[in-house]
Amino acid sequence: MPLDLSEPHFQEEVIAAGTMVADLAGVFSGSVLGALLAERRKMDLMGFLVLGLVSGVGGGILRDTLLQVGPPLALVKPSYLVAAFTGAFAAFIFELKHGPTVKLLSTLDALTLGSFAVAGTQRTLEVGLSPGTAVLIGIIAAAGGGVIRDVLIRRTPTVMRPEPGYYALAALAASLVCLAFSLTGHRRLALAAGMAVGAAVRLISVRRGWRLPIK
Amino acid sequence: MPLDLSEPHFQEEVIAAGTMVADLAGVFSGSVLGALLAERRKMDLMGFLVLGLVSGVGGGILRDTLLQVGPPLALVKPSYLVAAFTGAFAAFIFELKHGPTVKLLSTLDALTLGSFAVAGTQRTLEVGLSPGTAVLIGIIAAAGGGVIRDVLIRRTPTVMRPEPGYYALAALAASLVCLAFSLTGHRRLALAAGMAVGAAVRLISVRRGWRLPIK
Amino acid sequence: MPLDLSEPHFQEEVIAAGTMVADLAGVFSGSVLGALLAERRKMDLMGFLVLGLVSGVGGGILRDTLLQVGPPLALVKPSYLVAAFTGAFAAFIFELKHGPTVKLLSTLDALTLGSFAVAGTQRTLEVGLSPGTAVLIGIIAAAGGGVIRDVLIRRTPTVMRPEPGYYALAALAASLVCLAFSLTGHRRLALAAGMAVGAAVRLISVRRGWRLPIK
Repeated sequence: MPLDLSEPHFQEEVIAAGTMVADLAGVFSGSVLGALLAERRKMDLMGFLVLGLVSGVGGGILRDTLLQVGPPLALVKPSYLVAAFTGAFAAFIFELKHGPTVKLLSTLDALTLGSFAVAGTQRTLEVGLSPGTAVLIGIIAAAGGGVIRDVLIRRTPTVMRPEPGYYALAALAASLVCLAFSLTGHRRLALAAGMAVGAAVRLISVRRGWRLPIK
Repeated sequence: MPLDLSEPHFQEEVIAAGTMVADLAGVFSGSVLGALLAERRKMDLMGFLVLGLVSGVGGGILRDTLLQVGPPLALVKPSYLVAAFTGAFAAFIFELKHGPTVKLLSTLDALTLGSFAVAGTQRTLEVGLSPGTAVLIGIIAAAGGGVIRDVLIRRTPTVMRPEPGYYALAALAASLVCLAFSLTGHRRLALAAGMAVGAAVRLISVRRGWRLPIK
Repeated sequence: MPLDLSEPHFQEEVIAAGTMVADLAGVFSGSVLGALLAERRKMDLMGFLVLGLVSGVGGGILRDTLLQVGPPLALVKPSYLVAAFTGAFAAFIFELKHGPTVKLLSTLDALTLGSFAVAGTQRTLEVGLSPGTAVLIGIIAAAGGGVIRDVLIRRTPTVMRPEPGYYALAALAASLVCLAFSLTGHRRLALAAGMAVGAAVRLISVRRGWRLPIK
């Protein structure tokens, strides 16, 4: 029997695998970037691990703690913790601060931002909550880890400061696109489309130096 | 059939409606006051929204996350998020910092402080936890949002500083009164009495400049 | 019938009682030490209570909120809140800052650090999560209260700073030992062994001034 790429079940598996890869890549890049903040602050190894863990899986844990449908996915599926700790240790062992690595990781972070948002949005819809809540949880899942990270290093959360580049807004865009596709029955397409839009908004807004309005 | 105001079912609905109005007014006033802190700190629009949301519904979300009886009410009933975001946007759009608005909102905040406390206390009793826990959750529900708000703007939580006016103590009074009425079977009266006592303690203590003892 | 000390059921009760005593002693010492930080910062009585409560039961509440198997134990069993508030009030009323009390409390805190870690580890295993998650939750249960406490007083969490003495690492050791005994079927021994190892690592590392590596 020849492999039929248009077969729905096969497509679903590809998207599920793709989502998993995007998720883990997002956890890893977030973890490395978070742990690098420990380096700047001359923290010890535990500082790297805490900041890496919080930056990598904090948003998802916040999402699942709010939805209250069992223990957070990051505590149930070992791959999330492995990705987060690998990232934190990598930041501790290798010299990643200089050179092209940070830029590469930031791009990876931007590319995967949407995967956190769409996962948060779809999980909220599955729990049976309203579309508005689904969008909010999508944003919290994408931006929440960074907020906890910034609180721990006593920095005003990046997401609240008028810095160039949209973060929460990119997550909002990803969530809204995901929501639109989900509600019209295109559940699988919703993931891919949301991720693409989130990455695009993030990358373009950073490059153009867009900022949210200040009062 | 004439309307019988003393009919128990009717009374219950009036109190339920009154509690809902007090709750939403509390969310709204807390949200505007929280978002105004974003203005002072020159945050962008997202700062207004985060601080407004956290100040308005943070305490209730903390309550429900601790009690673990399903997703937080603020995520289930859209009216809470609507009230919080309306408050945050209002603070962003209008000039509320000066003039009588802040004073009006502070009074509204004081008047509704008790509604958070009694809701927290009664919900805890419904879950079957002890009266002591019910009072604690009442205080957390009333003061928790402000604590998260203060952590996010890197300020020592107001509730822990020797400032004039009782906040946590007003919530404690509201919770205790609510508890006393609830345990003696006057469940509906408990809400109204608790709210009234909470508002009175808050308003009088602010006017008189009362402070908690320092060691 | 003579009392048979080697009878399994009797041993189990002794260990259960011992664990309870260690737990409550840990909550009490953590609460006093936390509340003393309110004194240094000239906070009012509410500051003492908040810091005492958070330091004493914050880690356990974080553990149970993450595991999502019902309301946190500290909210269900009144003895935890009693121990925490007693500690906080004691710090407010008595002069504990000077003299041998702090040293005594720090030793008590070190001795009981492991009890938080093993309780977190075993509870996670009971919920059915992986050994790696069990160790992580053990560390969070032991160190989490201190992190929230430090965030509230706007201090970089002690556990992330290169200070002399292992804290998280002592909890890690306790959790690992507990895990090893638990997985080989010695569930009761796991508690005692884990606690002993945790206390030993903490006390020795403080005395020797050991620090985690900095990058």
